[in-house]
Amino acid sequence: MIVMKGDATEQQVAAVIERIERAGARAHVSAGEFVTVIGAIGDDRELIAALDIEGEGGVERVVPILKPYKLVSKDFRGDAPVEIAGRLVGGDNFCLIAGPCTVESRAQTLDTADVVKSVGATMLRGGAFKPRSSPYTFQGLGREALTILAEARERTGLPIVTEVMDVRQIEDVVEVADVIQLGARNMQNFDLLKEVGRTGTAVLLKRGMSATCEEWLLSAEYIAREGNERILLCERGIRTFETGAYRSTLDIGAVPAVKQVSGLPVIVDPSHAAGKRDLILPMAMASVAAGADGLIVEVHPSPETALCDGPQALYADKFAAWVADVKRIVDVMGKVIAGGEPVAVNA
Amino acid sequence: MIVMKGDATEQQVAAVIERIERAGARAHVSAGEFVTVIGAIGDDRELIAALDIEGEGGVERVVPILKPYKLVSKDFRGDAPVEIAGRLVGGDNFCLIAGPCTVESRAQTLDTADVVKSVGATMLRGGAFKPRSSPYTFQGLGREALTILAEARERTGLPIVTEVMDVRQIEDVVEVADVIQLGARNMQNFDLLKEVGRTGTAVLLKRGMSATCEEWLLSAEYIAREGNERILLCERGIRTFETGAYRSTLDIGAVPAVKQVSGLPVIVDPSHAAGKRDLILPMAMASVAAGADGLIVEVHPSPETALCDGPQALYADKFAAWVADVKRIVDVMGKVIAGGEPVAVNA
Amino acid sequence: MIVMKGDATEQQVAAVIERIERAGARAHVSAGEFVTVIGAIGDDRELIAALDIEGEGGVERVVPILKPYKLVSKDFRGDAPVEIAGRLVGGDNFCLIAGPCTVESRAQTLDTADVVKSVGATMLRGGAFKPRSSPYTFQGLGREALTILAEARERTGLPIVTEVMDVRQIEDVVEVADVIQLGARNMQNFDLLKEVGRTGTAVLLKRGMSATCEEWLLSAEYIAREGNERILLCERGIRTFETGAYRSTLDIGAVPAVKQVSGLPVIVDPSHAAGKRDLILPMAMASVAAGADGLIVEVHPSPETALCDGPQALYADKFAAWVADVKRIVDVMGKVIAGGEPVAVNA
Amino acid sequence: MIVMKGDATEQQVAAVIERIERAGARAHVSAGEFVTVIGAIGDDRELIAALDIEGEGGVERVVPILKPYKLVSKDFRGDAPVEIAGRLVGGDNFCLIAGPCTVESRAQTLDTADVVKSVGATMLRGGAFKPRSSPYTFQGLGREALTILAEARERTGLPIVTEVMDVRQIEDVVEVADVIQLGARNMQNFDLLKEVGRTGTAVLLKRGMSATCEEWLLSAEYIAREGNERILLCERGIRTFETGAYRSTLDIGAVPAVKQVSGLPVIVDPSHAAGKRDLILPMAMASVAAGADGLIVEVHPSPETALCDGPQALYADKFAAWVADVKRIVDVMGKVIAGGEPVAVNA
Repeated sequence: MIVMKGDATEQQVAAVIERIERAGARAHVSAGEFVTVIGAIGDDRELIAALDIEGEGGVERVVPILKPYKLVSKDFRGDAPVEIAGRLVGGDNFCLIAGPCTVESRAQTLDTADVVKSVGATMLRGGAFKPRSSPYTFQGLGREALTILAEARERTGLPIVTEVMDVRQIEDVVEVADVIQLGARNMQNFDLLKEVGRTGTAVLLKRGMSATCEEWLLSAEYIAREGNERILLCERGIRTFETGAYRSTLDIGAVPAVKQVSGLPVIVDPSHAAGKRDLILPMAMASVAAGADGLIVEVHPSPETALCDGPQALYADKFAAWVADVKRIVDVMGKVIAGGEPVAVNA
Repeated sequence: MIVMKGDATEQQVAAVIERIERAGARAHVSAGEFVTVIGAIGDDRELIAALDIEGEGGVERVVPILKPYKLVSKDFRGDAPVEIAGRLVGGDNFCLIAGPCTVESRAQTLDTADVVKSVGATMLRGGAFKPRSSPYTFQGLGREALTILAEARERTGLPIVTEVMDVRQIEDVVEVADVIQLGARNMQNFDLLKEVGRTGTAVLLKRGMSATCEEWLLSAEYIAREGNERILLCERGIRTFETGAYRSTLDIGAVPAVKQVSGLPVIVDPSHAAGKRDLILPMAMASVAAGADGLIVEVHPSPETALCDGPQALYADKFAAWVADVKRIVDVMGKVIAGGEPVAVNA
Repeated sequence: MIVMKGDATEQQVAAVIERIERAGARAHVSAGEFVTVIGAIGDDRELIAALDIEGEGGVERVVPILKPYKLVSKDFRGDAPVEIAGRLVGGDNFCLIAGPCTVESRAQTLDTADVVKSVGATMLRGGAFKPRSSPYTFQGLGREALTILAEARERTGLPIVTEVMDVRQIEDVVEVADVIQLGARNMQNFDLLKEVGRTGTAVLLKRGMSATCEEWLLSAEYIAREGNERILLCERGIRTFETGAYRSTLDIGAVPAVKQVSGLPVIVDPSHAAGKRDLILPMAMASVAAGADGLIVEVHPSPETALCDGPQALYADKFAAWVADVKRIVDVMGKVIAGGEPVAVNA
Repeated sequence: MIVMKGDATEQQVAAVIERIERAGARAHVSAGEFVTVIGAIGDDRELIAALDIEGEGGVERVVPILKPYKLVSKDFRGDAPVEIAGRLVGGDNFCLIAGPCTVESRAQTLDTADVVKSVGATMLRGGAFKPRSSPYTFQGLGREALTILAEARERTGLPIVTEVMDVRQIEDVVEVADVIQLGARNMQNFDLLKEVGRTGTAVLLKRGMSATCEEWLLSAEYIAREGNERILLCERGIRTFETGAYRSTLDIGAVPAVKQVSGLPVIVDPSHAAGKRDLILPMAMASVAAGADGLIVEVHPSPETALCDGPQALYADKFAAWVADVKRIVDVMGKVIAGGEPVAVNA
């Protein structure tokens, strides 16, 4: 819907109409007393987006009526759960993803994997390639970590979630990963989104640090357009002026807001938002109560010596008690943690 | 703690020390290989704050070690509940404050008050003086509204929460109010904080739209310094780049973060954060699960015709069902809604 | 302009129309293929604002066409300069306001006033009442400072700019001040805006730390509605995630953006935005180049010992050189610093 | 510098010391009355970064003293200009980069290139690969655009600036580009930073939408560590709560703040910050006055029909007048636009 300026000339109105029609849409003109409003009608987003009409003379404002995404909208896909290695995520199936921030060694990873398995979690997480702000910090074990994760998967039966930072890592990662994680800093790495979309492996798409909900869903749309609709959205906190109280501002309102417009499951990462161990539990419980479809948390046998993000890792030996607390809210929400043996799925 | 620049001269170090001592504190110098660090020691915040030493030559950075607030810190006051008209807020006592955004008429207010009473809420809210961004919008009924609120209080026995915007309104408001609300826009109206602190009436202090948690607590300290420590902190959403998904970004992490350092109860206002009716319930449930000590929500018999903030008002006739949903989380948290008859308190 | 939801019923459309007409406006309905758009037509902002129609059933979105402010818009008032004590601010008249952050003593203030006078500045600033985040920091000398400012005014002939924080200070302040400063924290202290508007004394209205440009202008509208249109807008930096590089993010784009829609002069305060002495000059020069109508800066004879904001005060003995640098950009912009003797004005 | 908690035990202090020494640094303990402070001394950032000591028991806070970047700091590299195709950027050499947002056709690009050449600009910009929030918008002509840019370079002699979004595009792009642009969304695409760093081609590194200045410099450090120190930093506006007045908040204070700590030239992109044609000139002039080393702007022969960002493109036929206005501030700053024939450089 294009609102013309009060003093737009007839020629300017005609130029807008012509441009709409040239793009293959239909124009519906409504000349009011003070302003003229022109609707561009067509149900093809590509066509509407191509208009890019804001530069035209006499245009006051363009008000989009259609959501700019389609495949990931609830209108289009409904809100069916996503299936991952025989486990469902979404609906009543609560997804608990846990594991070390980073794969540091075989022992640390397998020990943590055993703990994660024992509490009935849904999947095991662990980073092989780590995006770090500074080139001087530990960047992950890389391919060696993938081998360790494969062993952990074999040993526990848990599906693996691990991050890809670069298109050249995809080939190796998909051999091990059941879910490819795309980090906050790569939410608008569009070529990576496309390539990951082509793999057919499920994706956990973290929200960018300053991305609007709409931009987040548009990034999911990039993946879906390549034919891959098994996407888990992951809220991990946004950047605001508050820097002392916690690490990132967990945007709890985004959980129900995004679920209203998109049928994709929304997972919350309270570890990164908290940045401090004591805040993870209340943030996790709040996320479940807000309607999140799952949690992804960091667990470490010895957080004091962790090579990355130790202060926000949960103690492995206290993890069962932590999960029990979260489970009380999961119960109230009428959900069950989708761990244990895979359910039979007709995918 | 003052970190000197690497190239600070001896004279500059001496000047800083002299200044610390002149202010009545003691200086503790630690000359390292690369930098010299000077501690200013004293347990009087007034004294330390007076130093304001950042402008001194050779000073790289001042790192405060003591929290800048004292009376509202958990270290000082513990986390005892706050008593209001015989009801406790904090600890296991969950506080549910409900009522119209604005007192529009006697009938609308009394009808709403009856509903609020019937669901067992703790207090009745209602605005007489409304802070509005535009001078062209409805600004509240003023003193007439106070009379209506007094009648609602008489009728239901519920304590009244109502806002003060100006020191000249205090005298009238304290006759009716059990809790004076200070709005987000007035969080740093320091003269108002002081005057309200002198009344002895309890205060609900909303967090400013872009206030850090520390600034919020410093504003509470202004009130406490006047001898009034019956303060409820109220998180109502902060301003971020996200504008489409909801009205304000509910800062759920601030709830446990503030409760860790301050013993004051924290109430959440999900209505203003949501801005849309459908988002209020998930935000409210999340707040309870995050450890909030209470909620303040807007209820209206006919939100479509409300003079202010209709889209974020709950329907009065559906409010009992809404409260039942929230109560499921309140139960899990081991709390009870502190409504009904006042408990006996030895205040 | 009200955009109805795609599935809005005829009854819902009729309800919206009835509501518009009940408010005294006219409704113009445009039923499109996908959505129905209803225009509410009337040129009275009060009337339109009163609609508050977003809560109505079936309403997708309300798109305001009219700016919500009127008296401070360029359409209404043009861009005539503002006259203050015989000096013009705006147009080609560049306004340089300088002086201490806070009046600390008679000597400090008069010495600074002499320096400010000697460089040909337009006005003298100095704080009597200081808004401070912490109750433990220096809060200003209060009425004693006003007496000192009156002496400085007598001595130098410079008009005085000083802040009011509370309605009860107005009576004393207007006896001394040629311009009442309203601080960032009070930008939405609506009762204070109204009272200051009633004084007839000119106003310097600082932008709130997280206020949009539209909210800033709405606050100016509050003042103008009381009959006082001698308003200087003051950009002083906004709060963002960046905290290390400077004190506040100077929103340089707001200067031309606000000047496009409002005819009021825009002054910039680079001292508060910089927070560090070295950054004040480049920020000041940038402000002039962006089209600002003036600057307000802090000058102190001995910043190291200042009781408030020393690190962002310019050295009094280097101020003439500082002004000379700024003046090179003022010259390029075709403006002159409106200092010296007052020009004859037919106000 | 590690500040221990007031109640840290001797064992905790010892554990921190051991950890520092294990990493190869030296520990300097300063036990004060209230807190113990431990300095970790070493001049190797890799070593210090590896400490990651915040998770240790008893640690209150870690205060970094050393800047986390080195190669891009002014201390290390000084502030020598960067040489690009025989032109210097930095110092007195002002860099004007202009051209279309996107290469749309041969005619549009060559026409624009001629205009850019005629005004004496330093380099030609033009996008072949476009990062777009929506998958439904025009994504650039890709390799075809590179061929057109090569022709424009041949024809005008102007060095080419064009964006790389994916490591797989680098090989083709470096054949044409004199400067590889890294967009805001890729500022923390660390693998791309490294690969681009290895090419030896100069880099224009845009600041991320919500990146702190320190993170921006750390990203530059990633490039420099691969041996490529010909880096131009580009400020293009950050994301804040203000959305109506302009497109992004131009962070003018970042220009001098970054130049104080890093010797790299800082270029400003006023087109993206403004988002509206009328605001580009004041933002550009402000940038020059703030000390920017250059500008990058979008120019189009017919912005109304541009496929991307038309509203923020300058008219090609008015570009000479626009440059003349900017040049008045460039002159005041004592700089010259480094266009025309390449200067002889002993690089």
